[in-house]
Amino acid sequence: MSRKKKGIDAERDLIHKFWGTGKWCALRTAGSGSMHFPAPDILASNIVRKVAIECKVTKDDKKYFPKDEVKQLKNFSEYFGAEPWIAVKFFRTSWFFLNIEDLRETKKSYVINKRNAILKGLSLKEFIGEGFE
Amino acid sequence: MSRKKKGIDAERDLIHKFWGTGKWCALRTAGSGSMHFPAPDILASNIVRKVAIECKVTKDDKKYFPKDEVKQLKNFSEYFGAEPWIAVKFFRTSWFFLNIEDLRETKKSYVINKRNAILKGLSLKEFIGEGFE
Repeated sequence: MSRKKKGIDAERDLIHKFWGTGKWCALRTAGSGSMHFPAPDILASNIVRKVAIECKVTKDDKKYFPKDEVKQLKNFSEYFGAEPWIAVKFFRTSWFFLNIEDLRETKKSYVINKRNAILKGLSLKEFIGEGFE
Repeated sequence: MSRKKKGIDAERDLIHKFWGTGKWCALRTAGSGSMHFPAPDILASNIVRKVAIECKVTKDDKKYFPKDEVKQLKNFSEYFGAEPWIAVKFFRTSWFFLNIEDLRETKKSYVINKRNAILKGLSLKEFIGEGFE
């Protein structure tokens, strides 16, 4: 399976889980062609929250996010009125939801390793759960 | 150019126009594969409004919208907390923004003809303009 296909499958998996709650709706965004307007991978909403999510799957123990990608997520979220979130899934882990502040800044990127994702991240259940409504 | 490509180009045209206002952001949604969760073609937002738009281009003098499509637009909008809108562009006209109530209901579809679109529809400028903020 190609990397792109795996990424799309992972996004669809999350979309499915959001709808499955019966309280959240979610959609995947499409590229805007050559125009390059900022857009998150997923936009989800329940009755009180709107969340813009950049989501990534990796087989490595850490995942890098280019600064421009994070900046676009922030920009879009501000414009749209949504909370910016990072969702990351490592090999044989479930999804972790992280704030941008939970990532470590390097010269060109932000990065999160598996250990810190487990320590700082919210599980999907925590992210969409009753504690947040 | 294929019909699908023309549709995507039309959506991109609208996205571009929303961003061009400096006050709106907008994104195209991607299909959710075999899952068929409801999603509008475009989701746009300014500081106070969120709008879900089903948009269509036609060379005919009328445009049909299958009932299921309209129902999905309503459902999604209710879940997401957005206003449901129809955007339609006829041959050599600009975009018209219509409420679902402006469409005429037939047995299997909703339909709008060019004449009624011109009479009842808002121009893009009216839709995103100062009168609505």
